[in-house]
Amino acid sequence: MNAPLPAHLLPRLEPRPVPAAMLEALQAQFGARCSTALAVREQHGRDESPIDAPPPEAVVYCESTEDVAAVVKLADRYAVPVIPFGVGSSLEGHLLAVQGGVSIDLSRMNKIVAVQPEDLTVTVQAGVTRMQLNNEIRHTGLFFPIDPGADASLGGMSATRASGTNAVRYGTMRENVLGLTVVTASGETIHTGTRARKSSAGYDLTRLMVGSEGTLGVMTEITLRLYPLPEAISAAICAFPSIDAAVRTTIQIIQMGIPIARCELLDTHAVRAVNRYDKLTLTEAPMLLMEFHGSSASVAEQAATVQQIATEFGGSGFQWATTPEERTKLWAARHRAYFAGLQLKAGCRTVTTDTCVPISRLAECVTQASDEATAAGMMHYIVGHVGDGNFHIAYLVDPAIASERETAERLNNQVVQRAIAAQGTCSGEHGIGLHKMDFLVTEAGAGAVDLMRTLKRALDPKNIMNPGKIFAL
Amino acid sequence: MNAPLPAHLLPRLEPRPVPAAMLEALQAQFGARCSTALAVREQHGRDESPIDAPPPEAVVYCESTEDVAAVVKLADRYAVPVIPFGVGSSLEGHLLAVQGGVSIDLSRMNKIVAVQPEDLTVTVQAGVTRMQLNNEIRHTGLFFPIDPGADASLGGMSATRASGTNAVRYGTMRENVLGLTVVTASGETIHTGTRARKSSAGYDLTRLMVGSEGTLGVMTEITLRLYPLPEAISAAICAFPSIDAAVRTTIQIIQMGIPIARCELLDTHAVRAVNRYDKLTLTEAPMLLMEFHGSSASVAEQAATVQQIATEFGGSGFQWATTPEERTKLWAARHRAYFAGLQLKAGCRTVTTDTCVPISRLAECVTQASDEATAAGMMHYIVGHVGDGNFHIAYLVDPAIASERETAERLNNQVVQRAIAAQGTCSGEHGIGLHKMDFLVTEAGAGAVDLMRTLKRALDPKNIMNPGKIFAL
Repeated sequence: MNAPLPAHLLPRLEPRPVPAAMLEALQAQFGARCSTALAVREQHGRDESPIDAPPPEAVVYCESTEDVAAVVKLADRYAVPVIPFGVGSSLEGHLLAVQGGVSIDLSRMNKIVAVQPEDLTVTVQAGVTRMQLNNEIRHTGLFFPIDPGADASLGGMSATRASGTNAVRYGTMRENVLGLTVVTASGETIHTGTRARKSSAGYDLTRLMVGSEGTLGVMTEITLRLYPLPEAISAAICAFPSIDAAVRTTIQIIQMGIPIARCELLDTHAVRAVNRYDKLTLTEAPMLLMEFHGSSASVAEQAATVQQIATEFGGSGFQWATTPEERTKLWAARHRAYFAGLQLKAGCRTVTTDTCVPISRLAECVTQASDEATAAGMMHYIVGHVGDGNFHIAYLVDPAIASERETAERLNNQVVQRAIAAQGTCSGEHGIGLHKMDFLVTEAGAGAVDLMRTLKRALDPKNIMNPGKIFAL
Repeated sequence: MNAPLPAHLLPRLEPRPVPAAMLEALQAQFGARCSTALAVREQHGRDESPIDAPPPEAVVYCESTEDVAAVVKLADRYAVPVIPFGVGSSLEGHLLAVQGGVSIDLSRMNKIVAVQPEDLTVTVQAGVTRMQLNNEIRHTGLFFPIDPGADASLGGMSATRASGTNAVRYGTMRENVLGLTVVTASGETIHTGTRARKSSAGYDLTRLMVGSEGTLGVMTEITLRLYPLPEAISAAICAFPSIDAAVRTTIQIIQMGIPIARCELLDTHAVRAVNRYDKLTLTEAPMLLMEFHGSSASVAEQAATVQQIATEFGGSGFQWATTPEERTKLWAARHRAYFAGLQLKAGCRTVTTDTCVPISRLAECVTQASDEATAAGMMHYIVGHVGDGNFHIAYLVDPAIASERETAERLNNQVVQRAIAAQGTCSGEHGIGLHKMDFLVTEAGAGAVDLMRTLKRALDPKNIMNPGKIFAL
């Protein structure tokens, strides 16, 4: 059982029932692809967030942009909410049907529309997952680097402006989405961007949609940048005497401009969790997982420089993973850290922070977050895309014990306020969803959030596109 | 004398006079900083575009965000247009007062607000120019890479989503603006973004403003990413037997993922122009100017690989410029290519294309553009940020001869239509302004442009922010 939606988020979230006429129209058009079965609805009404809400009233499995447009046109006609659904891996309640409505399941839109290896671009349907994409383009010698922990859909990753372990080198979805096909709130289909690498042609609708969490339109196709698989890849792990030492090593790597491809922190708890879950034998100490991409000579040079920096900060036990198998094992363990962490405490859910700060402030922010959680007796673990200044502290809470949730929220609040004071952000990559609305106001200011509301009202006057997320209207 | 504004752009552009009461209020508040002198107004009513329009009715020299907010509040009250002005280097008519109004001169907002070398960030006032910024931060060992031809203001560069010669490695203003202070159409001041490298916190207002050409708000302060000066830099020039050979070399460099920092094409005409203007002795043939950044070993390796590729395509006379003086001379010549080109024909103005295409289509697009101009007997030169797929063909027209302008526009149209057919864009870095509105509709589609209009109306209901640009309302 999850925690209920916090009371202060609920004031304007009256249920908006799906009229019988709309349901009949959906069933007439989609047949068995429109489901009202409770199990299906419940599966589409939750995600990895610790929040509960009633499920949507119906789920429609769309297979094309035209399908999506048809559902949205009905939703527009009846002023009913629609919520796009990829794989359900949101951590912030993005998929919760807080006002009821219809879930638009995009998982069957899982085709690679076109790949242009000679241009380093690909166009995918929104339901394609990141691993599927990389499997299907392997023969081209190219890859798509953005890798959130889950095997998320590219649609969901675009909607939350996701990143992951490679962002320090390759950027986030913000930098890597070139264009979109979007069904707007009126059910019209528009195209944004082009396949050119850059553009100054009018408002940047692509980046307005990327990170809009389904509140401005449903993205159905996505054109992405790809990258040549590096000639050489080398991964390394290094244990440190403290979180501080590991983060200070990272800071120096970034400040020196070393083009490191991945630079991930795991605290002792996280290392313990992946050791257990993945049957590894990593030293249970704060640790950096790093990866270097480039020519053989460049990778060797980067690695040597980084090893020297790490040694200066007390790093020890530098271990290399140069074979693809070793590397895959290491990064698979890192990607499963979230699920590994959940196993540290039976039946727990996590409250996860997602702050991202200017790199010089990272050591103090991570260390204080860790110390405060320890002092509060709160089970937790820390993983971080520290090369970006982004880290997650996951508090493991028993959903049956209200005080644990309260303590986690209090600690979370402290981490966020500190990040904002350091001119950072409350969300590096997970999005605002239901959970961080108040933080967004603190961070951006009431004026900027009002401007976001103005955009929302202009593009979605009936408030049918994933309502209740990012801000209360 | 410039060409008049094309008639088809004019239908909704009725003049909107500045009421006497507003002018009095401006003069009372700003004294001598509010000018109605014709020479001042004329200087603020033109740019590098070949279009003429009447000048603004007044110019206000703002020295702070509060000054800008005060002007905009008056403009809001009297429903009068305001046009932000940096250095006047727009090529697309962005600064033209097509409906009259007040020019907001930001050139006195030329302070570095804060530089944080340890975070690789800087905050500047909008009137700071790119060269000034790099001069003032030189002591930090960091630099800001975006370099349009002119010594443009960072405000203007943000407004047009500018790029330049380094974008192939470092991205454009889209990737390098982290946050903004913006005066909105109601005269409110908001802040967008943070100093964190990435964020998923709400709508991406920063990137909505970047490239909005002054039509959604006036950017007054800008937080930018900086980069460590590379340990080693090496520049090279190489002549080719044809434009096609030079571009195919570029395509292969990009497809191989070589992290080249600059990769610029000059056609024979452009080389001749810079030879004359800068008293250089470059071989008058299609030429690539390249630069490599990194460690000494990495630069040497990149350069060797590129030299090998160039040789395969018939490149010859590879010349290295390794001393800072030689490099500066070379790149200064490249940056002056626009002004050098103007000297090829006495009294001429240019009509300049700015298409950007997927890299595999670049060779055919550049070659056909060149061939068509030659066949039409139109004097021209080509420069290109070819690593990005972006090139400019500048047609040199005598503004007194209508047929030259018509021929240039016809050729321009062919170049753009070809780029759009190749899934590229009509504008890689100059913006839409007055000149490319029709192309924007062709490229983005009426639906996407309508969505832009909806955003504009929502954020600027009185249409006072640089009206008449990007699209007709």
